[in-house]
Amino acid sequence: MGDACGIGPEIIAKAFASGQAQGAFVLGDAGVMRRTLAQVEQGTALALIDSPRDLGLCPPNCVPLVQARGLPADLLQAGLGRVDARAGAAAAACIEQAVSLVQAGEARAIVTAPIHKEALSAAGVTFPGHTEMLQALAAPAGTAVPPVRMMLANDELRTVLVTIHMSLRNAIEAVTFEAVLETLRITDRAMRAFGIAAPHVGVAGLNPHAGEGGLFGDEEQRIIAPAIAAARAEGIDATGPYAPDTVFMRARQTPERPGEFDVVVAMTHDHGLIPVKYLGVEQGVNVTLGLPFVRTSPDHGTAFDIAGSGRADASSLIAALRMARRLSA
Amino acid sequence: MGDACGIGPEIIAKAFASGQAQGAFVLGDAGVMRRTLAQVEQGTALALIDSPRDLGLCPPNCVPLVQARGLPADLLQAGLGRVDARAGAAAAACIEQAVSLVQAGEARAIVTAPIHKEALSAAGVTFPGHTEMLQALAAPAGTAVPPVRMMLANDELRTVLVTIHMSLRNAIEAVTFEAVLETLRITDRAMRAFGIAAPHVGVAGLNPHAGEGGLFGDEEQRIIAPAIAAARAEGIDATGPYAPDTVFMRARQTPERPGEFDVVVAMTHDHGLIPVKYLGVEQGVNVTLGLPFVRTSPDHGTAFDIAGSGRADASSLIAALRMARRLSA
Repeated sequence: MGDACGIGPEIIAKAFASGQAQGAFVLGDAGVMRRTLAQVEQGTALALIDSPRDLGLCPPNCVPLVQARGLPADLLQAGLGRVDARAGAAAAACIEQAVSLVQAGEARAIVTAPIHKEALSAAGVTFPGHTEMLQALAAPAGTAVPPVRMMLANDELRTVLVTIHMSLRNAIEAVTFEAVLETLRITDRAMRAFGIAAPHVGVAGLNPHAGEGGLFGDEEQRIIAPAIAAARAEGIDATGPYAPDTVFMRARQTPERPGEFDVVVAMTHDHGLIPVKYLGVEQGVNVTLGLPFVRTSPDHGTAFDIAGSGRADASSLIAALRMARRLSA
Repeated sequence: MGDACGIGPEIIAKAFASGQAQGAFVLGDAGVMRRTLAQVEQGTALALIDSPRDLGLCPPNCVPLVQARGLPADLLQAGLGRVDARAGAAAAACIEQAVSLVQAGEARAIVTAPIHKEALSAAGVTFPGHTEMLQALAAPAGTAVPPVRMMLANDELRTVLVTIHMSLRNAIEAVTFEAVLETLRITDRAMRAFGIAAPHVGVAGLNPHAGEGGLFGDEEQRIIAPAIAAARAEGIDATGPYAPDTVFMRARQTPERPGEFDVVVAMTHDHGLIPVKYLGVEQGVNVTLGLPFVRTSPDHGTAFDIAGSGRADASSLIAALRMARRLSA
């Protein structure tokens, strides 16, 4: 359900009401979803179910919901559009229980609605984002967390990020041979799992003009090119490093021309996200590669500024649901 | 004329042959342009003129050319598609003489065709690009070079860069209070000179999520926000810093919706160039802000891989010529 104070409940209600959430159920709070439906989708009813197994018993055009356990009793008191520790605690509980369900085989994929970092933090949760939390939850106690990578995708472009939620200064240090090679392995495996038989992975450089032969930085020569060579030696069709300012344009797939690459590996958060978001944030889907289950999410945040206004756009959530169905089919 | 071994002469020939280079003349080498016309535009003649003042005497549908002085005698021996010191030396000579003409009032603007850094370097020229060379040439001997900034523009988006040709590591250090404030001043002045009465300047952050309140880097709080505040105190309508991954999307101007900003100031080369180039490199124009004359250029390089093939696309040069006419009118 995501953060109860953000647009999560609203876009969930809209996605189900639009008939484009087939096969999905909500793991969240019945009170919050009932309030949301009364505000934005009066014609759609909530159907409380005990377990995902009962999904087939629900009438069409309803929002099937499994009540998450242990949510703050006064969650409905948390004001829309504000950071609230209760909403952060509830969001974290929903994520944990969603992972349990998918690990128990009761669900095939997780689609996460937006959470708010400060609300999570106010609730004492220290993970910087969904991804890191899911990664920790996916590892059995005492085992190493699986390496994961964030992929952003829309109809034109897929991009996988070597580094995400850290300063640009730290991101440069985090672009290591191991991190790039691991990203290429995760990307190649995921593309094959998604049905691309021989994925061509384009690799962006870190520096302007991919370092211009060493004039503008040597990370391409020292780190990225060797990692590409190592990946190629493992049978991964990775090429590059290419200039960051043109590799995404070259990968862009339109009705007029096929893209040159099936996916682009980007070194930094913004190199990868700027082009995916440029054509409209509502079209992008976030996919976590490397987890032992399928996880997608919309490519936007809680949008506190419009929470409760009825103006939230469910397109990206609907795209995330579609992607989750496809990847877990 | 740019590098004689790249696509410069070809796109110049095509731009004139298309009738979209009205008011322009070539400063370059007659032999190179004659060879190019014979290869790609047989129906278009070269018209040698002694000075731009004679432009009005040229028949229509020709390529008016002022022969640059002091070019290597064996320039035509330089092979197409290769780094050649002779082509680098010729390109540098053309740039120097173009600046002299515009400083003498014999031309109103400079449109530069692509040069190749390695060819320049082979010729003993140490500037990393056109911009730095023009900046040095624009300063009278013994005076400080004028601070300039690169603007990339297409029909949807304008972006001005705080840092350009340096490693990402060095770019982070070069994002100083002074550099950001100076960029905002240059941008505001240029937008007004270009006819936007009250330009709204959106400022991108450096770090993911513009630092997420300091969690992912503090340059936004330490440097960028104070520079925006200082600019606002000078009457410049700058706002931000905004998350780099969404500010360009928000600035995007389409027939369906106006952009939120007239121009976006980006901290790094690739933050700014990725979105401008994403929709197609042929549409972008490079404008140097802050010089004492108008200078535009196409938003691509020498494309050695297709030089001589006749496949070069003159769209960006034509857009650069159009922009130069507009800005110097």
